[in-house]
Amino acid sequence: MTQWLVNGLPDGSLSPQDRGLAYGDGLFETIALRAGKFRLLDYHLERLQTGCERLAIPPPAKGLLGAELQQLAANCANGTAKIIITRGCGPRGYRTPVATHATRLVGLFPAVDLSLPAWRDGIRVRWCQTPVAENPLLAGLKTLNRLEQVLGRAEWQDDTISEGLMSTLQGHVIGGTMSNLFMVSGSQLLTPDLSRCGINGVMRRLILEVAAELGISTLEQSMDAAQLLAADEVFLSNCLLGIAPVISLGDQPLTIGPVSRQMMQALAQRGISECAVA
Amino acid sequence: MTQWLVNGLPDGSLSPQDRGLAYGDGLFETIALRAGKFRLLDYHLERLQTGCERLAIPPPAKGLLGAELQQLAANCANGTAKIIITRGCGPRGYRTPVATHATRLVGLFPAVDLSLPAWRDGIRVRWCQTPVAENPLLAGLKTLNRLEQVLGRAEWQDDTISEGLMSTLQGHVIGGTMSNLFMVSGSQLLTPDLSRCGINGVMRRLILEVAAELGISTLEQSMDAAQLLAADEVFLSNCLLGIAPVISLGDQPLTIGPVSRQMMQALAQRGISECAVA
Repeated sequence: MTQWLVNGLPDGSLSPQDRGLAYGDGLFETIALRAGKFRLLDYHLERLQTGCERLAIPPPAKGLLGAELQQLAANCANGTAKIIITRGCGPRGYRTPVATHATRLVGLFPAVDLSLPAWRDGIRVRWCQTPVAENPLLAGLKTLNRLEQVLGRAEWQDDTISEGLMSTLQGHVIGGTMSNLFMVSGSQLLTPDLSRCGINGVMRRLILEVAAELGISTLEQSMDAAQLLAADEVFLSNCLLGIAPVISLGDQPLTIGPVSRQMMQALAQRGISECAVA
Repeated sequence: MTQWLVNGLPDGSLSPQDRGLAYGDGLFETIALRAGKFRLLDYHLERLQTGCERLAIPPPAKGLLGAELQQLAANCANGTAKIIITRGCGPRGYRTPVATHATRLVGLFPAVDLSLPAWRDGIRVRWCQTPVAENPLLAGLKTLNRLEQVLGRAEWQDDTISEGLMSTLQGHVIGGTMSNLFMVSGSQLLTPDLSRCGINGVMRRLILEVAAELGISTLEQSMDAAQLLAADEVFLSNCLLGIAPVISLGDQPLTIGPVSRQMMQALAQRGISECAVA
């Protein structure tokens, strides 16, 4: 069963006047609970803090979210936690209330069904038609404005396709509906520049850091479909699933390559167990 | 006091798992209640229906929203109603649940304080820095993804400035944070094309219809700041306030002209009492 703490209260609910509902005026995080530990928790909380600062939402007191997560995980070793922070309730209208009391929701969901196709063995990916809009003020943040991802994910029902890639109207590929994108070209690991749109994933951050440790050259830059189809390797990342090598992209088959395997092995050694070869 | 019906229940609240909160996966309407009647209700319900169809959210049964609005208005002649329709609750993740039970919220807020500066006498307007992102799939709809408007409205605190104009990254002016935009150029009434972004306001719709009845030529097209500053007249529209002539735009003073006055008189005759000259 999913459990929630709303401003610390078990089984709390939300006011119809919460700005998180009214305007998507808030942020969220999705965190893997593995063997009793919240994985990459510091990275998640850092991104949330950055988001609160950029949207001028008062961040929760230090330590509070961690304590509430631990409270929910008392009887549960594995699952998926979700944090939602909104600007709180206010009168009608876009204007930010003078006295803002942010709303804090912390939930714990059952673990993802592991009988689902394992991402580590390679996934089939499609191209989405739904565009991702560009707005540098929101770029990188995991805000509650996610209708584009909802519409992107609604484009297919075929369960053999694990993810869809979304692009801007200008043809820049930004990432999957729920994952970040990487391509290997020669000796370089490239991932889309997220200065105008997209979400700055915590697994993406870890991958860029681990690649640097391994001496793999990395670059954040814009990329289009043709560059991606010409890449030596393509993989996706997600904080719940680690790395997923792409074995087909639209109609084109792709091969799982050595850099993907090296990165997965390195992540597995850092506790991302989904990347461990069975 | 604000009253809410949540799926028909008085003082209901919202589940933390509602997709309206999680993703802004829904739509809303804001409706003027004047002398016991919900103004332009048919236009609001038509826009909501269009939005539900475009987002594939099951629309409420015919007549239900009207009945719930009447229920809330039983002891209140004037106020502001709000309808929120979300895709409802679901498991975690962007994927649309197979069985969707939309969430329906209907609220009634006290009337707007009429001691506020009257829009009909002319308003001062500024330029917002926050851009409006382009996504044709969402353009025109009043979705719950409204962070851009929140950030735009947060740019100023000066109460003598009533509204801010927002533009795309390409420099197309789209409208105010909470209003649609019109300019008069020669004998023509122009308003921004909303095929790539912006909200298709019900007062905008009424204005275009009334202008056609009056024999005023109208055109929906993209416009930039320079064109707007060179216009003969500029006014904004909003379903709660009717028409607001713009008397200054950034640093530049503007004059209230005959077409604005003619349109306001015509709207006042059609029941938009805020447009009547005192």
